[in-house]
Amino acid sequence: MASLAIGADLGGTNARAAVVDRATGDVRTVHRERLDERSPEAVAEVVARVVLNAPNLGWRDVAFGPMVAQALGVPVRIVNDLSAAAWGERQLGAAKGVDEAALVFVGSGVGSGLIVGGQLHDGARGVAGELGHTKVRPMRGGPPRLCGCGQRGCLEAYAGGSKLAERVREELLAGAASCIPELVQGDLEQVTASVVDRAAAVGDVYARELWDEVGDLLGTAIANLITLLNPARVILGGGVILGCPELEKLVRLAYAERVSRSAMEGVELVPAALGEDAGVVGAALLD
Amino acid sequence: MASLAIGADLGGTNARAAVVDRATGDVRTVHRERLDERSPEAVAEVVARVVLNAPNLGWRDVAFGPMVAQALGVPVRIVNDLSAAAWGERQLGAAKGVDEAALVFVGSGVGSGLIVGGQLHDGARGVAGELGHTKVRPMRGGPPRLCGCGQRGCLEAYAGGSKLAERVREELLAGAASCIPELVQGDLEQVTASVVDRAAAVGDVYARELWDEVGDLLGTAIANLITLLNPARVILGGGVILGCPELEKLVRLAYAERVSRSAMEGVELVPAALGEDAGVVGAALLD
Repeated sequence: MASLAIGADLGGTNARAAVVDRATGDVRTVHRERLDERSPEAVAEVVARVVLNAPNLGWRDVAFGPMVAQALGVPVRIVNDLSAAAWGERQLGAAKGVDEAALVFVGSGVGSGLIVGGQLHDGARGVAGELGHTKVRPMRGGPPRLCGCGQRGCLEAYAGGSKLAERVREELLAGAASCIPELVQGDLEQVTASVVDRAAAVGDVYARELWDEVGDLLGTAIANLITLLNPARVILGGGVILGCPELEKLVRLAYAERVSRSAMEGVELVPAALGEDAGVVGAALLD
Repeated sequence: MASLAIGADLGGTNARAAVVDRATGDVRTVHRERLDERSPEAVAEVVARVVLNAPNLGWRDVAFGPMVAQALGVPVRIVNDLSAAAWGERQLGAAKGVDEAALVFVGSGVGSGLIVGGQLHDGARGVAGELGHTKVRPMRGGPPRLCGCGQRGCLEAYAGGSKLAERVREELLAGAASCIPELVQGDLEQVTASVVDRAAAVGDVYARELWDEVGDLLGTAIANLITLLNPARVILGGGVILGCPELEKLVRLAYAERVSRSAMEGVELVPAALGEDAGVVGAALLD
């Protein structure tokens, strides 16, 4: 049992944990539980419960949470979720064995995780990889959009699924002509990036113009990351890319036009392999 | 003599070489020679001559060029000039002892060198750091400017000293109103970034508008690099930043507005310490 490690991921909605055998890379179990209350105490308890219920550990009713809290001898490392996911993909997924790689994730938020020289690069203060908060300027101009972080003009304010859905709802309510309301039977709360993608696929002008903008911004951001870091592989993850084929086409077109010729040589853009478990698996495998 | 190493830098105009004692970090000598002819043979000869004339080596009339070419036993490593410069600043200059650092250079061209985890990061194919060829979009819009690399919209096409001077000449010849022609006594061949900076300092509207654009683009590029990589120190080098105080102010303003709050914490922007010798000194100190 000595080589087992636990990775835990505390998201906005769920806590998730994986138990991984560090020696073999074998993922013993992955558990998920809703985070209904968000105080530190409540979250600690949920993590403890997630671990408690891991059947493959053979643990029952072990007070693991307090044990971690009290026992300073237990190694605990805190990393950004996408850094952990990048490390998971590097160790067991789409970048297995690749020493220069990046994970670009476009889901409800936007971010990245960077593998440099075979190591996770988390920066001087552990906050490297915040691709979603690099600043962008859309083709159509206009005032920079407000991001959840409080700044304006962040990539996430344009391309993150939450902000995207919020924007589409606002623009439709303000009278934009589109087939999107029809696709959601008039319930604008059901608008997601994937719905916009279906509208774009049938030629909806509003959706296509929005996708041109978002595809350009995402493709340029990926191109610039590659031009700067010269990775051998870039892993694309998250529903706004993997669940939106029309958008992904535009992202790849913009990327190919904008990346420097020298950094483009030999780089591959591939889909993530581990899905939502990448983070907890990666966290368990980190040194 | 066993710990002496030679770094050579082949620029567009000059060849430069340094002899450095790797054990002590002592820079024994730095030599420079014009590159009048640019064939590989001619350049190899100039490098050999530069080394030949290094007095502190005590070498005279040694056929070193052919010796390097023939003797495969001699370790030779080729790196990008700004990567070498970043390593020089990391080992002996403005980022001495700093494990997470970047050099951003704005001279006739624009580029960067990246130090990650205390190592030079040169990427999967040795072309990392090409900040000058990341793509940007200026506030004022307009068609993306053509870069020397053949692509459009590169940062270097807006902020590199050569392209900048070329643009100013074109716009003045096309009738832009400015005091710049006066500052160069009507000889537009004398236009440089530093002249534009003097015009901006006295409130010239053309120069100020140009500087607003260039300062915004450079400041945003530096902010985005920092947001992505989370370095502890960023070294600014090159005449277009270090010789242009008005522009530098605008770069720092745009940077401070755009960088993510978490990556901004604890990062310092400092001027380069080694000047034009950073590259050859760094090259000599590379493993």
